[in-house]
Amino acid sequence: MQTLPEKPAWLRRVSILGVGLLGGSVGMALRRRGIHVVGYSRRESSCRAAIEAGAVDEGFTEIATACRGSDVVVVASPVDKIVELAVAADHVLDDDALITDVGSTKAQIVAEIAAQSPSLARKFVAAHPIAGSEKTGVENATATLLEGKLVIMTPADQTPAAAVDRAAAFWLQTGGEILSMSPEQHDQRLAAVSHVPHLVSSLLASLVDDACLPLVGSGWRDMTRVAAGDPTMWTAICVHNREAILNQLDHFSEALGSLRALLAGGDTAALKSWLDEAKARKEATE
Amino acid sequence: MQTLPEKPAWLRRVSILGVGLLGGSVGMALRRRGIHVVGYSRRESSCRAAIEAGAVDEGFTEIATACRGSDVVVVASPVDKIVELAVAADHVLDDDALITDVGSTKAQIVAEIAAQSPSLARKFVAAHPIAGSEKTGVENATATLLEGKLVIMTPADQTPAAAVDRAAAFWLQTGGEILSMSPEQHDQRLAAVSHVPHLVSSLLASLVDDACLPLVGSGWRDMTRVAAGDPTMWTAICVHNREAILNQLDHFSEALGSLRALLAGGDTAALKSWLDEAKARKEATE
Repeated sequence: MQTLPEKPAWLRRVSILGVGLLGGSVGMALRRRGIHVVGYSRRESSCRAAIEAGAVDEGFTEIATACRGSDVVVVASPVDKIVELAVAADHVLDDDALITDVGSTKAQIVAEIAAQSPSLARKFVAAHPIAGSEKTGVENATATLLEGKLVIMTPADQTPAAAVDRAAAFWLQTGGEILSMSPEQHDQRLAAVSHVPHLVSSLLASLVDDACLPLVGSGWRDMTRVAAGDPTMWTAICVHNREAILNQLDHFSEALGSLRALLAGGDTAALKSWLDEAKARKEATE
Repeated sequence: MQTLPEKPAWLRRVSILGVGLLGGSVGMALRRRGIHVVGYSRRESSCRAAIEAGAVDEGFTEIATACRGSDVVVVASPVDKIVELAVAADHVLDDDALITDVGSTKAQIVAEIAAQSPSLARKFVAAHPIAGSEKTGVENATATLLEGKLVIMTPADQTPAAAVDRAAAFWLQTGGEILSMSPEQHDQRLAAVSHVPHLVSSLLASLVDDACLPLVGSGWRDMTRVAAGDPTMWTAICVHNREAILNQLDHFSEALGSLRALLAGGDTAALKSWLDEAKARKEATE
Protein backbone atom coordinates (compact mmCIF):
# COMPACT_ATOMS: atom_id res chain seq x y z
CA MET A 1 0.00 0.00 0.00
CA GLN A 2 1.36 3.40 -1.02
CA THR A 3 1.95 6.23 1.47
CA LEU A 4 -0.81 8.81 1.25
CA PRO A 5 -0.90 12.39 2.58
CA GLU A 6 -2.44 12.72 6.04
CA LYS A 7 -6.24 12.58 6.01
CA PRO A 8 -7.65 16.14 6.12
CA ALA A 9 -9.44 16.87 9.41
CA TRP A 10 -12.58 18.04 7.59
CA LEU A 11 -12.95 14.74 5.68
CA ARG A 12 -15.08 12.40 7.77
CA ARG A 13 -18.10 11.37 5.77
CA VAL A 14 -18.40 10.73 2.03
CA SER A 15 -21.46 9.79 0.00
CA ILE A 16 -21.15 7.85 -3.22
CA LEU A 17 -24.02 8.10 -5.66
CA GLY A 18 -23.86 4.95 -7.78
CA VAL A 19 -21.75 2.21 -6.24
CA GLY A 20 -20.48 0.31 -9.28
CA LEU A 21 -16.93 -0.55 -10.29
CA LEU A 22 -15.55 2.96 -9.91
CA GLY A 23 -17.80 4.25 -7.11
CA GLY A 24 -17.28 1.03 -5.18
CA SER A 25 -13.51 1.21 -5.58
CA VAL A 26 -13.50 4.83 -4.33
CA GLY A 27 -15.57 3.72 -1.33
CA MET A 28 -13.21 0.87 -0.51
CA ALA A 29 -10.15 3.13 -0.76
CA LEU A 30 -11.74 5.73 1.54
CA ARG A 31 -12.91 3.20 4.12
CA ARG A 32 -9.32 1.98 4.46
CA ARG A 33 -8.49 5.55 5.54
CA GLY A 34 -11.12 5.42 8.28
CA ILE A 35 -13.60 7.61 6.40
CA HIS A 36 -17.30 6.84 6.86
CA VAL A 37 -18.77 5.99 3.44
CA VAL A 38 -22.46 6.12 2.58
CA GLY A 39 -23.82 4.69 -0.65
CA TYR A 40 -26.83 5.65 -2.70
CA SER A 41 -28.52 3.40 -5.20
CA ARG A 42 -32.05 3.36 -6.58
CA ARG A 43 -32.33 -0.31 -5.71
CA GLU A 44 -32.28 -1.76 -2.22
CA SER A 45 -30.50 -4.86 -3.57
CA SER A 46 -27.66 -2.70 -4.92
CA CYS A 47 -27.29 -1.04 -1.52
CA ARG A 48 -26.99 -4.44 0.12
CA ALA A 49 -24.49 -5.63 -2.49
CA ALA A 50 -22.35 -2.52 -1.88
CA ILE A 51 -22.34 -3.15 1.87
CA GLU A 52 -21.54 -6.83 1.41
CA ALA A 53 -18.68 -5.98 -0.95
CA GLY A 54 -17.20 -3.68 1.70
CA ALA A 55 -17.57 -0.64 -0.54
CA VAL A 56 -19.77 1.38 1.84
CA ASP A 57 -20.63 1.43 5.55
CA GLU A 58 -24.32 2.00 4.89
CA GLY A 59 -26.57 2.39 1.88
CA PHE A 60 -29.78 4.28 1.11
CA THR A 61 -32.25 4.44 -1.76
CA GLU A 62 -32.97 8.13 -1.10
CA ILE A 63 -30.41 10.67 -2.24
CA ALA A 64 -31.27 13.16 0.50
CA THR A 65 -30.78 10.57 3.24
CA ALA A 66 -27.56 9.34 1.67
CA CYS A 67 -26.05 12.84 1.30
CA ARG A 68 -27.21 14.74 4.42
CA GLY A 69 -24.26 15.65 6.64
CA SER A 70 -21.59 14.49 4.18
CA ASP A 71 -18.39 16.42 3.56
CA VAL A 72 -18.01 15.09 0.01
CA VAL A 73 -20.47 13.63 -2.48
CA VAL A 74 -18.98 11.61 -5.34
CA VAL A 75 -21.34 11.20 -8.28
CA ALA A 76 -20.35 7.91 -9.90
CA SER A 77 -23.26 7.42 -12.28
CA PRO A 78 -23.30 7.21 -16.09
CA VAL A 79 -22.41 10.66 -17.51
CA ASP A 80 -25.97 11.50 -18.54
CA LYS A 81 -27.20 11.28 -14.92
CA ILE A 82 -24.42 13.22 -13.19
CA VAL A 83 -25.94 16.73 -13.24
CA GLU A 84 -29.35 15.55 -12.00
CA LEU A 85 -27.76 13.68 -9.08
CA ALA A 86 -25.46 16.60 -8.23
CA VAL A 87 -28.48 18.95 -8.12
CA ALA A 88 -30.31 16.58 -5.76
CA ALA A 89 -27.26 16.29 -3.51
CA ASP A 90 -26.76 20.07 -3.40
CA HIS A 91 -30.20 20.55 -1.82
CA VAL A 92 -29.21 18.85 1.43
CA LEU A 93 -25.49 19.68 1.72
CA ASP A 94 -23.79 22.30 3.86
CA ASP A 95 -22.30 25.29 2.03
CA ASP A 96 -18.72 24.12 2.42
CA ALA A 97 -19.38 20.57 1.23
CA LEU A 98 -17.75 19.33 -1.98
CA ILE A 99 -19.44 17.59 -4.90
CA THR A 100 -17.24 15.80 -7.40
CA ASP A 101 -17.76 13.11 -10.03
CA VAL A 102 -16.00 10.39 -11.99
CA GLY A 103 -17.51 10.99 -15.43
CA SER A 104 -15.55 10.25 -18.61
CA THR A 105 -16.74 13.48 -20.23
CA LYS A 106 -16.45 16.93 -18.72
CA ALA A 107 -17.36 19.99 -20.84
CA GLN A 108 -21.12 19.42 -21.01
CA ILE A 109 -21.33 18.48 -17.33
CA VAL A 110 -19.35 21.54 -16.21
CA ALA A 111 -21.46 23.83 -18.42
CA GLU A 112 -24.75 22.38 -17.17
CA ILE A 113 -23.67 22.62 -13.54
CA ALA A 114 -22.74 26.30 -14.01
CA ALA A 115 -26.16 26.94 -15.56
CA GLN A 116 -28.04 25.22 -12.71
CA SER A 117 -27.40 27.26 -9.59
CA PRO A 118 -24.61 29.31 -8.02
CA SER A 119 -24.85 27.15 -4.88
CA LEU A 120 -24.12 23.98 -6.83
CA ALA A 121 -21.44 25.63 -8.99
CA ARG A 122 -19.55 26.70 -5.84
CA LYS A 123 -19.48 23.12 -4.55
CA PHE A 124 -18.81 21.20 -7.73
CA VAL A 125 -15.31 20.25 -8.89
CA ALA A 126 -15.42 17.94 -11.90
CA ALA A 127 -13.04 15.01 -11.89
CA HIS A 128 -12.24 11.92 -13.92
CA PRO A 129 -10.10 9.13 -12.50
CA ILE A 130 -8.35 7.32 -15.37
CA ALA A 131 -9.10 3.89 -13.98
CA GLY A 132 -11.56 1.32 -15.05
CA SER A 133 -12.15 -1.91 -16.80
CA GLU A 134 -14.55 -3.50 -19.23
CA LYS A 135 -15.88 -5.19 -16.11
CA THR A 136 -18.65 -3.46 -14.26
CA GLY A 137 -20.35 -3.66 -10.89
CA VAL A 138 -19.32 -3.39 -7.25
CA GLU A 139 -18.34 -7.09 -7.30
CA ASN A 140 -15.31 -6.11 -9.42
CA ALA A 141 -14.39 -3.07 -7.30
CA THR A 142 -11.05 -3.02 -5.46
CA ALA A 143 -9.56 -0.66 -2.89
CA THR A 144 -6.46 -0.31 -5.07
CA LEU A 145 -8.13 0.53 -8.40
CA LEU A 146 -7.10 4.20 -8.21
CA GLU A 147 -3.64 3.68 -6.73
CA GLY A 148 -1.10 5.59 -8.78
CA LYS A 149 -3.74 6.42 -11.38
CA LEU A 150 -4.28 9.91 -12.71
CA VAL A 151 -7.33 11.82 -11.50
CA ILE A 152 -7.99 14.62 -13.97
CA MET A 153 -9.65 17.65 -12.39
CA THR A 154 -11.40 20.12 -14.67
CA PRO A 155 -12.66 23.00 -12.51
CA ALA A 156 -14.60 25.79 -14.21
CA ASP A 157 -13.07 29.29 -14.34
CA GLN A 158 -15.44 30.40 -11.59
CA THR A 159 -14.94 27.41 -9.26
CA PRO A 160 -13.69 28.77 -5.88
CA ALA A 161 -10.03 27.96 -5.20
CA ALA A 162 -10.99 26.52 -1.78
CA ALA A 163 -13.26 23.96 -3.46
CA VAL A 164 -10.51 23.01 -5.92
CA ASP A 165 -8.07 22.54 -3.02
CA ARG A 166 -10.56 20.37 -1.15
CA ALA A 167 -11.18 18.28 -4.24
CA ALA A 168 -7.46 17.70 -4.73
CA ALA A 169 -7.03 16.76 -1.07
CA PHE A 170 -10.02 14.43 -1.35
CA TRP A 171 -8.85 12.60 -4.48
CA LEU A 172 -5.33 12.16 -3.06
CA GLN A 173 -6.95 10.07 -0.30
CA THR A 174 -8.09 7.52 -2.90
CA GLY A 175 -4.49 6.91 -4.00
CA GLY A 176 -4.85 8.93 -7.20
CA GLU A 177 -2.50 11.58 -8.60
CA ILE A 178 -3.96 14.92 -9.62
CA LEU A 179 -3.65 16.58 -13.04
CA SER A 180 -5.68 19.69 -13.86
CA MET A 181 -6.81 20.89 -17.26
CA SER A 182 -9.80 22.61 -18.86
CA PRO A 183 -12.96 20.57 -19.52
CA GLU A 184 -12.46 21.07 -23.27
CA GLN A 185 -8.86 19.86 -23.18
CA HIS A 186 -9.99 16.84 -21.21
CA ASP A 187 -12.71 15.97 -23.68
CA GLN A 188 -10.55 16.31 -26.78
CA ARG A 189 -7.71 14.30 -25.24
CA LEU A 190 -10.03 11.59 -23.91
CA ALA A 191 -11.64 11.34 -27.35
CA ALA A 192 -8.13 10.54 -28.64
CA VAL A 193 -6.98 8.09 -25.96
CA SER A 194 -10.26 6.50 -24.92
CA HIS A 195 -13.48 7.28 -26.77
CA VAL A 196 -12.30 6.83 -30.36
CA PRO A 197 -10.17 3.78 -29.42
CA HIS A 198 -13.32 2.34 -27.83
CA LEU A 199 -15.33 2.85 -31.02
CA VAL A 200 -12.48 1.39 -33.09
CA SER A 201 -12.43 -1.62 -30.79
CA SER A 202 -16.16 -2.13 -31.38
CA LEU A 203 -15.61 -1.65 -35.11
CA LEU A 204 -12.93 -4.35 -35.21
CA ALA A 205 -15.24 -6.69 -33.29
CA SER A 206 -18.17 -5.98 -35.61
CA LEU A 207 -16.12 -6.69 -38.75
CA VAL A 208 -15.30 -10.29 -37.84
CA ASP A 209 -17.66 -12.67 -39.62
CA ASP A 210 -18.33 -16.32 -38.79
CA ALA A 211 -15.53 -17.58 -41.05
CA CYS A 212 -12.99 -15.37 -39.28
CA LEU A 213 -14.22 -15.99 -35.76
CA PRO A 214 -12.13 -19.14 -35.08
CA LEU A 215 -8.98 -17.43 -36.37
CA VAL A 216 -8.77 -14.60 -33.86
CA GLY A 217 -5.56 -14.52 -31.87
CA SER A 218 -4.28 -12.69 -28.82
CA GLY A 219 -3.80 -9.43 -30.75
CA TRP A 220 -7.42 -9.24 -31.81
CA ARG A 221 -8.54 -10.31 -28.34
CA ASP A 222 -6.59 -7.46 -26.73
CA MET A 223 -7.82 -4.93 -29.25
CA THR A 224 -11.45 -5.84 -28.74
CA ARG A 225 -11.39 -6.23 -24.96
CA VAL A 226 -13.01 -2.83 -24.37
CA ALA A 227 -15.71 -3.61 -26.95
CA ALA A 228 -17.19 -5.79 -24.20
CA GLY A 229 -17.81 -2.64 -22.13
CA ASP A 230 -21.32 -1.53 -21.16
CA PRO A 231 -23.12 -0.20 -24.29
CA THR A 232 -25.45 2.03 -22.28
CA MET A 233 -22.55 3.75 -20.53
CA TRP A 234 -20.65 4.17 -23.80
CA THR A 235 -23.67 5.50 -25.67
CA ALA A 236 -23.98 8.21 -23.02
CA ILE A 237 -20.26 9.04 -23.36
CA CYS A 238 -20.55 9.25 -27.17
CA VAL A 239 -23.56 11.53 -26.99
CA HIS A 240 -21.97 13.78 -24.37
CA ASN A 241 -18.66 14.11 -26.12
CA ARG A 242 -19.94 13.92 -29.67
CA GLU A 243 -18.16 16.95 -31.12
CA ALA A 244 -14.72 15.99 -29.81
CA ILE A 245 -15.24 12.37 -30.88
CA LEU A 246 -16.32 13.38 -34.41
CA ASN A 247 -13.30 15.63 -34.62
CA GLN A 248 -10.99 12.83 -33.51
CA LEU A 249 -12.68 10.30 -35.81
CA ASP A 250 -11.82 12.67 -38.67
CA HIS A 251 -8.16 12.78 -37.59
CA PHE A 252 -8.16 9.00 -37.38
CA SER A 253 -9.83 8.62 -40.74
CA GLU A 254 -7.34 10.97 -42.39
CA ALA A 255 -4.41 9.07 -40.87
CA LEU A 256 -5.98 5.81 -42.07
CA GLY A 257 -6.12 7.21 -45.59
CA SER A 258 -2.43 8.15 -45.44
CA LEU A 259 -1.56 4.69 -44.17
CA ARG A 260 -3.51 3.10 -47.01
CA ALA A 261 -1.64 5.24 -49.53
CA LEU A 262 1.67 4.31 -47.91
CA LEU A 263 0.87 0.60 -48.21
CA ALA A 264 -0.52 0.87 -51.74
CA GLY A 265 2.51 2.90 -52.86
CA GLY A 266 4.84 0.02 -52.05
CA ASP A 267 7.55 2.10 -50.35
CA THR A 268 8.71 -0.61 -47.96
CA ALA A 269 11.25 1.60 -46.16
CA ALA A 270 8.63 4.26 -45.47
CA LEU A 271 6.20 1.65 -44.14
CA LYS A 272 8.88 0.21 -41.87
CA SER A 273 9.76 3.64 -40.52
CA TRP A 274 6.06 4.42 -39.89
CA LEU A 275 5.77 1.16 -37.90
CA ASP A 276 8.99 2.07 -36.04
CA GLU A 277 7.55 5.46 -35.04
CA ALA A 278 4.27 3.93 -33.85
CA LYS A 279 6.21 1.39 -31.79
CA ALA A 280 8.31 4.16 -30.22
CA ARG A 281 5.14 6.11 -29.40
CA LYS A 282 3.64 3.04 -27.75
CA GLU A 283 6.79 2.41 -25.78
CA ALA A 284 6.87 6.03 -24.55
CA THR A 285 3.84 5.15 -22.40
CA GLU A 286 5.43 2.19 -20.64
CA MET B 1 -0.38 -30.88 -20.10
CA GLN B 2 -2.97 -31.94 -22.66
CA THR B 3 -3.19 -35.48 -24.05
CA LEU B 4 -1.70 -35.64 -27.53
CA PRO B 5 -2.07 -38.35 -30.21
CA GLU B 6 0.69 -40.94 -30.13
CA LYS B 7 3.93 -39.77 -31.71
CA PRO B 8 4.13 -41.04 -35.33
CA ALA B 9 6.91 -43.61 -35.78
CA TRP B 10 8.41 -41.68 -38.70
CA LEU B 11 8.81 -38.50 -36.67
CA ARG B 12 12.23 -38.61 -35.01
CA ARG B 13 14.21 -35.57 -36.08
CA VAL B 14 12.96 -32.03 -36.78
CA SER B 15 14.93 -29.00 -37.96
CA ILE B 16 13.78 -25.51 -37.13
CA LEU B 17 15.05 -22.72 -39.34
CA GLY B 18 14.89 -19.56 -37.23
CA VAL B 19 14.61 -20.24 -33.51
CA GLY B 20 12.72 -17.19 -32.24
CA LEU B 21 9.51 -16.99 -30.23
CA LEU B 22 7.49 -19.29 -32.46
CA GLY B 23 10.27 -21.58 -33.74
CA GLY B 24 11.62 -21.90 -30.20
CA SER B 25 8.19 -22.75 -28.80
CA VAL B 26 7.69 -25.43 -31.48
CA GLY B 27 11.10 -26.86 -30.59
CA MET B 28 10.29 -26.98 -26.87
CA ALA B 29 6.94 -28.67 -27.49
CA LEU B 30 8.57 -31.31 -29.71
CA ARG B 31 11.45 -32.00 -27.33
CA ARG B 32 8.90 -32.79 -24.61
CA ARG B 33 7.65 -35.54 -26.93
CA GLY B 34 11.12 -37.04 -27.19
CA ILE B 35 11.78 -35.73 -30.70
CA HIS B 36 15.33 -34.67 -31.55
CA VAL B 37 15.29 -30.98 -32.51
CA VAL B 38 18.00 -29.25 -34.53
CA GLY B 39 18.10 -25.48 -34.88
CA TYR B 40 19.47 -23.31 -37.66
CA SER B 41 20.44 -19.70 -37.22
CA ARG B 42 22.82 -17.50 -39.16
CA ARG B 43 24.51 -16.49 -35.94
CA GLU B 44 26.45 -18.80 -33.66
CA SER B 45 25.24 -16.79 -30.66
CA SER B 46 21.60 -17.45 -31.61
CA CYS B 47 22.33 -21.18 -31.84
CA ARG B 48 23.82 -21.08 -28.34
CA ALA B 49 20.85 -19.09 -26.99
CA ALA B 50 18.42 -21.63 -28.49
CA ILE B 51 20.27 -24.52 -26.84
CA GLU B 52 20.47 -22.69 -23.51
CA ALA B 53 16.73 -21.91 -23.65
CA GLY B 54 15.99 -25.61 -24.15
CA ALA B 55 14.40 -25.00 -27.56
CA VAL B 56 16.76 -27.26 -29.53
CA ASP B 57 19.12 -30.17 -28.87
CA GLU B 58 21.80 -28.80 -31.17
CA GLY B 59 22.24 -25.77 -33.40
CA PHE B 60 24.08 -25.05 -36.66
CA THR B 61 24.85 -21.98 -38.74
CA GLU B 62 24.66 -23.97 -41.99
CA ILE B 63 21.26 -24.90 -43.34
CA ALA B 64 22.48 -28.10 -45.00
CA THR B 65 24.04 -29.37 -41.79
CA ALA B 66 20.96 -28.45 -39.80
CA CYS B 67 18.52 -30.15 -42.20
CA ARG B 68 20.33 -33.28 -43.37
CA GLY B 69 18.56 -36.42 -42.18
CA SER B 70 15.52 -34.60 -40.75
CA ASP B 71 11.97 -35.88 -41.13
CA VAL B 72 10.47 -32.40 -40.88
CA VAL B 73 11.86 -28.92 -41.48
CA VAL B 74 9.92 -26.03 -39.96
CA VAL B 75 10.72 -22.67 -41.54
CA ALA B 76 10.11 -20.12 -38.80
CA SER B 77 11.66 -17.04 -40.36
CA PRO B 78 10.05 -13.71 -41.34
CA VAL B 79 7.66 -14.31 -44.27
CA ASP B 80 9.97 -12.79 -46.88
CA LYS B 81 12.70 -15.39 -46.17
CA ILE B 82 10.56 -18.54 -46.07
CA VAL B 83 10.80 -19.62 -49.72
CA GLU B 84 14.57 -19.15 -49.87
CA LEU B 85 15.08 -21.24 -46.73
CA ALA B 86 12.66 -23.94 -47.93
CA VAL B 87 14.59 -24.20 -51.21
CA ALA B 88 17.88 -24.62 -49.35
CA ALA B 89 16.38 -27.29 -47.07
CA ASP B 90 14.92 -29.20 -50.01
CA HIS B 91 18.41 -29.75 -51.46
CA VAL B 92 19.50 -32.02 -48.63
CA LEU B 93 16.25 -33.74 -47.60
CA ASP B 94 15.01 -37.23 -48.42
CA ASP B 95 12.08 -37.45 -50.82
CA ASP B 96 9.55 -38.29 -48.12
CA ALA B 97 10.60 -35.50 -45.79
CA LEU B 98 8.14 -32.71 -44.96
CA ILE B 99 8.76 -28.96 -45.10
CA THR B 100 6.30 -26.68 -43.35
CA ASP B 101 6.36 -23.10 -42.08
CA VAL B 102 4.79 -20.74 -39.57
CA GLY B 103 4.35 -17.64 -41.74
CA SER B 104 1.48 -15.21 -41.19
CA THR B 105 0.83 -14.93 -44.93
CA LYS B 106 0.27 -17.84 -47.27
CA ALA B 107 -0.81 -17.15 -50.91
CA GLN B 108 2.46 -15.64 -52.12
CA ILE B 109 4.56 -18.30 -50.37
CA VAL B 110 2.49 -21.19 -51.74
CA ALA B 111 2.64 -19.73 -55.27
CA GLU B 112 6.40 -19.16 -55.13
CA ILE B 113 7.03 -22.67 -53.78
CA ALA B 114 4.96 -24.18 -56.63
CA ALA B 115 7.01 -22.17 -59.14
CA GLN B 116 10.35 -23.27 -57.66
CA SER B 117 10.62 -27.00 -58.20
CA PRO B 118 8.39 -30.09 -58.22
CA SER B 119 10.59 -31.69 -55.58
CA LEU B 120 10.01 -28.82 -53.14
CA ALA B 121 6.31 -28.52 -53.99
CA ARG B 122 5.80 -32.21 -53.11
CA LYS B 123 7.37 -31.74 -49.69
CA PHE B 124 5.92 -28.37 -48.70
CA VAL B 125 2.71 -27.96 -46.69
CA ALA B 126 2.14 -24.35 -45.66
CA ALA B 127 0.96 -23.74 -42.12
CA HIS B 128 0.29 -20.87 -39.74
CA PRO B 129 -0.08 -21.45 -36.02
CA ILE B 130 -2.31 -18.73 -34.56
CA ALA B 131 -0.08 -18.14 -31.58
CA GLY B 132 2.27 -15.34 -30.83
CA SER B 133 2.96 -12.29 -28.84
CA GLU B 134 4.36 -8.82 -29.30
CA LYS B 135 7.38 -10.33 -27.54
CA THR B 136 10.05 -11.84 -29.71
CA GLY B 137 13.04 -14.11 -29.30
CA VAL B 138 13.71 -17.57 -27.98
CA GLU B 139 13.93 -16.18 -24.44
CA ASN B 140 10.14 -15.71 -24.54
CA ALA B 141 9.41 -19.12 -26.06
CA THR B 142 7.41 -21.68 -24.07
CA ALA B 143 6.59 -25.35 -24.65
CA THR B 144 2.89 -24.55 -24.21
CA LEU B 145 2.58 -21.63 -26.65
CA LEU B 146 0.71 -23.73 -29.23
CA GLU B 147 -1.40 -25.76 -26.82
CA GLY B 148 -5.01 -25.64 -27.91
CA LYS B 149 -4.18 -23.02 -30.55
CA LEU B 150 -5.32 -23.32 -34.14
CA VAL B 151 -2.75 -24.29 -36.76
CA ILE B 152 -4.11 -23.28 -40.15
CA MET B 153 -2.88 -25.48 -42.98
CA THR B 154 -3.12 -24.16 -46.54
CA PRO B 155 -1.93 -26.92 -48.89
CA ALA B 156 -1.86 -26.16 -52.61
CA ASP B 157 -4.21 -28.09 -54.93
CA GLN B 158 -1.31 -30.22 -56.12
CA THR B 159 0.17 -30.99 -52.67
CA PRO B 160 0.23 -34.83 -52.26
CA ALA B 161 -2.33 -36.10 -49.74
CA ALA B 162 0.40 -38.05 -47.94
CA ALA B 163 2.32 -34.81 -47.28
CA VAL B 164 -0.83 -33.12 -45.98
CA ASP B 165 -1.46 -36.07 -43.63
CA ARG B 166 2.10 -35.96 -42.37
CA ALA B 167 1.85 -32.21 -41.80
CA ALA B 168 -1.36 -32.63 -39.78
CA ALA B 169 0.20 -35.43 -37.71
CA PHE B 170 3.29 -33.27 -37.15
CA TRP B 171 1.43 -30.14 -36.02
CA LEU B 172 -0.78 -32.17 -33.65
CA GLN B 173 2.43 -33.09 -31.79
CA THR B 174 2.96 -29.40 -30.90
CA GLY B 175 -0.39 -29.27 -29.12
CA GLY B 176 -2.11 -27.36 -31.91
CA GLU B 177 -5.47 -28.06 -33.54
CA ILE B 178 -5.67 -28.28 -37.32
CA LEU B 179 -7.91 -26.21 -39.60
CA SER B 180 -7.49 -26.33 -43.38
CA MET B 181 -8.42 -23.65 -45.90
CA SER B 182 -7.10 -22.20 -49.16
CA PRO B 183 -4.12 -19.81 -49.02
CA GLU B 184 -6.35 -17.01 -50.34
CA GLN B 185 -9.02 -17.59 -47.68
CA HIS B 186 -6.31 -17.58 -45.06
CA ASP B 187 -4.85 -14.30 -46.26
CA GLN B 188 -8.17 -12.47 -46.47
CA ARG B 189 -9.28 -13.70 -43.05
CA LEU B 190 -5.95 -12.95 -41.42
CA ALA B 191 -6.06 -9.45 -42.93
CA ALA B 192 -9.36 -9.02 -41.04
CA VAL B 193 -8.42 -10.53 -37.69
CA SER B 194 -4.72 -9.74 -37.51
CA HIS B 195 -3.05 -7.59 -40.14
CA VAL B 196 -5.51 -4.70 -40.27
CA PRO B 197 -6.00 -4.76 -36.47
CA HIS B 198 -2.21 -4.54 -36.19
CA LEU B 199 -2.09 -1.48 -38.46
CA VAL B 200 -4.98 0.08 -36.55
CA SER B 201 -3.12 -0.52 -33.30
CA SER B 202 -0.08 1.29 -34.71
CA LEU B 203 -2.36 4.07 -35.95
CA LEU B 204 -3.87 4.56 -32.50
CA ALA B 205 -0.39 4.67 -31.00
CA SER B 206 0.85 7.15 -33.58
CA LEU B 207 -2.07 9.54 -32.96
CA VAL B 208 -1.32 10.11 -29.28
CA ASP B 209 0.58 13.38 -28.83
CA ASP B 210 2.60 14.51 -25.81
CA ALA B 211 -0.41 16.14 -24.14
CA CYS B 212 -2.41 12.91 -24.37
CA LEU B 213 0.39 10.59 -23.36
CA PRO B 214 -0.16 10.80 -19.56
CA LEU B 215 -3.91 10.21 -19.98
CA VAL B 216 -3.79 6.78 -21.54
CA GLY B 217 -5.64 4.10 -19.59
CA SER B 218 -5.90 0.35 -19.70
CA GLY B 219 -8.12 0.38 -22.81
CA TRP B 220 -5.57 2.26 -24.89
CA ARG B 221 -2.77 0.12 -23.50
CA ASP B 222 -4.53 -3.08 -24.57
CA MET B 223 -5.36 -1.72 -27.99
CA THR B 224 -1.80 -0.65 -28.69
CA ARG B 225 -0.04 -3.70 -27.25
CA VAL B 226 0.58 -5.23 -30.67
CA ALA B 227 1.95 -1.92 -31.98
CA ALA B 228 5.07 -2.84 -29.99
CA GLY B 229 5.60 -5.81 -32.33
CA ASP B 230 8.67 -6.11 -34.55
CA PRO B 231 8.40 -3.53 -37.39
CA THR B 232 10.63 -5.56 -39.74
CA MET B 233 8.44 -8.63 -39.38
CA TRP B 234 5.25 -6.61 -39.85
CA THR B 235 6.60 -4.75 -42.86
CA ALA B 236 7.23 -8.11 -44.53
CA ILE B 237 3.70 -9.28 -43.67
CA CYS B 238 2.18 -6.08 -45.07
CA VAL B 239 4.16 -6.37 -48.31
CA HIS B 240 3.32 -10.06 -48.73
CA ASN B 241 -0.38 -9.67 -48.03
CA ARG B 242 -0.80 -6.20 -49.49
CA GLU B 243 -3.85 -6.85 -51.67
CA ALA B 244 -5.90 -8.53 -48.94
CA ILE B 245 -4.87 -5.86 -46.43
CA LEU B 246 -5.82 -3.01 -48.78
CA ASN B 247 -9.13 -4.73 -49.40
CA GLN B 248 -9.78 -5.09 -45.66
CA LEU B 249 -8.63 -1.52 -44.97
CA ASP B 250 -11.31 -0.41 -47.41
CA HIS B 251 -13.97 -2.44 -45.57
CA PHE B 252 -12.77 -0.94 -42.30
CA SER B 253 -12.76 2.57 -43.71
CA GLU B 254 -16.27 2.20 -45.06
CA ALA B 255 -17.52 0.89 -41.70
CA LEU B 256 -15.77 3.80 -39.99
CA GLY B 257 -17.64 6.21 -42.27
CA SER B 258 -20.97 4.58 -41.37
CA LEU B 259 -20.14 4.80 -37.69
CA ARG B 260 -19.28 8.49 -38.04
CA ALA B 261 -22.61 9.11 -39.74
CA LEU B 262 -24.42 7.19 -36.99
CA LEU B 263 -22.80 9.32 -34.31
CA ALA B 264 -23.28 12.60 -36.18
CA GLY B 265 -26.94 11.75 -36.87
CA GLY B 266 -27.70 11.68 -33.15
CA ASP B 267 -29.84 8.49 -33.22
CA THR B 268 -28.97 7.34 -29.72
CA ALA B 269 -30.95 4.09 -29.92
CA ALA B 270 -29.20 3.08 -33.14
CA LEU B 271 -25.78 3.84 -31.63
CA LYS B 272 -26.63 1.79 -28.55
CA SER B 273 -27.77 -1.15 -30.66
CA TRP B 274 -24.59 -0.94 -32.79
CA LEU B 275 -22.50 -1.10 -29.59
CA ASP B 276 -24.67 -4.02 -28.38
CA GLU B 277 -23.97 -5.94 -31.58
CA ALA B 278 -20.23 -5.32 -31.42
CA LYS B 279 -20.22 -6.50 -27.80
CA ALA B 280 -22.10 -9.68 -28.76
CA ARG B 281 -19.62 -10.29 -31.59
CA LYS B 282 -16.72 -9.89 -29.18
CA GLU B 283 -18.31 -12.20 -26.68
CA ALA B 284 -18.89 -14.87 -29.35
CA THR B 285 -15.10 -15.38 -29.34
CA GLU B 286 -14.79 -16.00 -25.60
